[in-house]
Amino acid sequence: MLRHIQLNSSGKLNHLLSTEGLPKPLILSILKRSNDFLTFDNQILIKRSKSLSGKSVFNIFFENSTRTSTTFEIAAKRLSADVINFNVDTSSTSKGESLLDTVDNFVAMQADMFVVRHYSSGASVLIAQHINKVAPHIHVMNAGDGSHAHPTQALLDMFTIQHFKGDFSNLRVAIIGDVVHSRVARSNIHALSTLGCPDIRVIGPSTLLPSNLSDLGVHGFNDMDHGLSEVDVVIVLRLQNERMTSTTLPSEHEYFQCYGLTEKRLLNAKSDVIVLHPGPMNRGVEIDSKVCDGPHSVILTQVTFGIAVRMAVMDILSNG
Amino acid sequence: MLRHIQLNSSGKLNHLLSTEGLPKPLILSILKRSNDFLTFDNQILIKRSKSLSGKSVFNIFFENSTRTSTTFEIAAKRLSADVINFNVDTSSTSKGESLLDTVDNFVAMQADMFVVRHYSSGASVLIAQHINKVAPHIHVMNAGDGSHAHPTQALLDMFTIQHFKGDFSNLRVAIIGDVVHSRVARSNIHALSTLGCPDIRVIGPSTLLPSNLSDLGVHGFNDMDHGLSEVDVVIVLRLQNERMTSTTLPSEHEYFQCYGLTEKRLLNAKSDVIVLHPGPMNRGVEIDSKVCDGPHSVILTQVTFGIAVRMAVMDILSNG
Amino acid sequence: MLRHIQLNSSGKLNHLLSTEGLPKPLILSILKRSNDFLTFDNQILIKRSKSLSGKSVFNIFFENSTRTSTTFEIAAKRLSADVINFNVDTSSTSKGESLLDTVDNFVAMQADMFVVRHYSSGASVLIAQHINKVAPHIHVMNAGDGSHAHPTQALLDMFTIQHFKGDFSNLRVAIIGDVVHSRVARSNIHALSTLGCPDIRVIGPSTLLPSNLSDLGVHGFNDMDHGLSEVDVVIVLRLQNERMTSTTLPSEHEYFQCYGLTEKRLLNAKSDVIVLHPGPMNRGVEIDSKVCDGPHSVILTQVTFGIAVRMAVMDILSNG
Repeated sequence: MLRHIQLNSSGKLNHLLSTEGLPKPLILSILKRSNDFLTFDNQILIKRSKSLSGKSVFNIFFENSTRTSTTFEIAAKRLSADVINFNVDTSSTSKGESLLDTVDNFVAMQADMFVVRHYSSGASVLIAQHINKVAPHIHVMNAGDGSHAHPTQALLDMFTIQHFKGDFSNLRVAIIGDVVHSRVARSNIHALSTLGCPDIRVIGPSTLLPSNLSDLGVHGFNDMDHGLSEVDVVIVLRLQNERMTSTTLPSEHEYFQCYGLTEKRLLNAKSDVIVLHPGPMNRGVEIDSKVCDGPHSVILTQVTFGIAVRMAVMDILSNG
Repeated sequence: MLRHIQLNSSGKLNHLLSTEGLPKPLILSILKRSNDFLTFDNQILIKRSKSLSGKSVFNIFFENSTRTSTTFEIAAKRLSADVINFNVDTSSTSKGESLLDTVDNFVAMQADMFVVRHYSSGASVLIAQHINKVAPHIHVMNAGDGSHAHPTQALLDMFTIQHFKGDFSNLRVAIIGDVVHSRVARSNIHALSTLGCPDIRVIGPSTLLPSNLSDLGVHGFNDMDHGLSEVDVVIVLRLQNERMTSTTLPSEHEYFQCYGLTEKRLLNAKSDVIVLHPGPMNRGVEIDSKVCDGPHSVILTQVTFGIAVRMAVMDILSNG
Repeated sequence: MLRHIQLNSSGKLNHLLSTEGLPKPLILSILKRSNDFLTFDNQILIKRSKSLSGKSVFNIFFENSTRTSTTFEIAAKRLSADVINFNVDTSSTSKGESLLDTVDNFVAMQADMFVVRHYSSGASVLIAQHINKVAPHIHVMNAGDGSHAHPTQALLDMFTIQHFKGDFSNLRVAIIGDVVHSRVARSNIHALSTLGCPDIRVIGPSTLLPSNLSDLGVHGFNDMDHGLSEVDVVIVLRLQNERMTSTTLPSEHEYFQCYGLTEKRLLNAKSDVIVLHPGPMNRGVEIDSKVCDGPHSVILTQVTFGIAVRMAVMDILSNG
């Protein structure tokens, strides 16, 4: 179903809601287009383009995330779009208006593209289904919905992995942390599978790993050293502070003892392993400072690539 | 007095503070100009213009309303103005600065136009009087002040009515709800009167209707079926949630029983009646979902027209 | 050390963190450049320029100040820069991310210039030291850090004084209020000293004056009439409301009795004295309304000059 909503009748990308259901050639074309927005010289530089000139991009955030909102704003502005930032938590929903009424109002203001973050899983799908009925010319990008999906994060992770590793067909990738609640993990697993990654692993306490691992084609590990063995890529998930207060997790200190990524533990991986993190990082909780700042970390490169990947998605949605 | 402040010595619009005191030709010229910013094809489209290029529009909101602020921001950007958004509730007034000192600071930053929303009735008049002394080149637009006036809302309602009904001279218009506290109702009544609407009605419980109905040239109704009889236009007011807690109103459920606009009640009106609402809507409180989404509703068209009308007012203020 | 961090190896301005350590020719060149962005006709007008076209200025505010943020936003936009506003108090730091990780993320988003306000003294120096290591092409402007420095405020005060008084070499300048906690006072004292002002005075209760007055080359006064005697310039500091609750200060009323600037007290100064205030003002606390609005006040002119001075600093940082 997610494939059907995301692609139009010619199989072109119409909304980006999830990496689930995206065909491999389409993912590869997004990664290729992202490269067009980067210059690799001594430094990686993001280009500017006129490709969304005269278009209006609405950043509609039902969940506060200034940083994610900022990366979409930068991407849209570098494509010459007009950007309207709208934080709904301080606005109409507090006045009792329904989600789709809020959306209808933005449609009537003649947006060309919506970037939506919402605290509820499935909100972006609901919005896209509605948009297809009332305003099929508008494109919807999911910037994170509940624990469902965060497709641009996954695509920038794929771009980063491709950049450093070239090909997915021989890779061993480990995702560490609260996998079961993570939209980043879920979107990464779908993208890695589609791109042909043969060995995807998730590492964490059993309470934080999904129960349907085999359906996902993923191997589960409770032990870090074992799970990290000979991996090419490590994706460290952020430990959500709000979950620390619940009973499913020990203290931050205990978590770090068991699942914090340290230099020593990283020795289990291949010598040219790369370490990714979606940010913001909790140093000393899910990752040790020496790893963040060490030679294997590509965490800040991800941020730069994230702008280019979001530009690529907006460009493809708008111009094909 | 409101006429004197809003018009310059040549009778041209200098500030837009209220529909009260606006001459009929001036209102009609705003409606005509609004049409210049729209294209009516299969779809209603808002045009772009360079008419405010190089001008700075300051959105100064002393009362939180992201949505209203956004419509002015879009209007100003589509006219190529620079837009500065300033939410004063989180800023200087909390630091003890007076309203006019805050205004003087924006004057010194060389704004060309102020869009002001304020929780106090009369704030925009106070500001315009001050501006006329210290910076007569600056134009003030009232985006809602207390329970006094919301002129751009009324003008977009007039534009909507004119678009669907053509002429005001034979119309019967009903406004339903908390009329006594509503700046939207007040501004609409003045505009309708000036445009020659012969039959203006307000419908609601006596506690929510103004006591000076005859001064306003308005007929009051406590009974919906009676009030809606043979009307051409219905304007449903938003029921302010904060008033629900007071003793002047029954529960939301009881309110809906008495004054909620349903399909059945709408049968009292003319068969081609149009239904307006300033938004955001409380479905199931002041209006039934079937009416919101039904064939008589022009509520989302109002939103699109609202951008064009605000563009027209800014264009006229700036360029005559 | 502050000189070393702010200037590059050729002695050109690389960051603006403090007026301390800025050579006199450099300060004078900033004042001269500011003049280029102003037209003095009947009215003082700020010009527009393309000098930062294609550059991204990030306004990063760890301390809420919509007004200061707005003046930098206006300055950057009038130079044709892209502006990204980022309020960190509602964002990543509340998620446990470290200051330098937040900065690194903005670096990775390819900012060209940072405008930073932070509640901690020294934050901007820490950031600039870090930037010099990781991204030496980025320029840092301090928009106020704790009680340390607020250099653009001091530079706009110097520009204002120079505009009205011409030369610093014969001036007597008094700064009134909570000098010990004021980054504005500190930055002004350094700038005035460097520009050769021979008589700098601070006036206030002993609890609010620095203990190292002679090191600063400043004369302290507890008595207003005595301190204001024959001064050319008075800089009134804002009394921070939050300090009023502490025990170091009497009531607002008592403060006004002792240290409020009134017309009568101003008679002690020279007849052509000018009065400055960084805003927002507490009328009736540190300054009487008649002085704010009187012939000696240049408080609103400061605001206009502030835009030009910030444009000048950005222009010099970016283009030399």
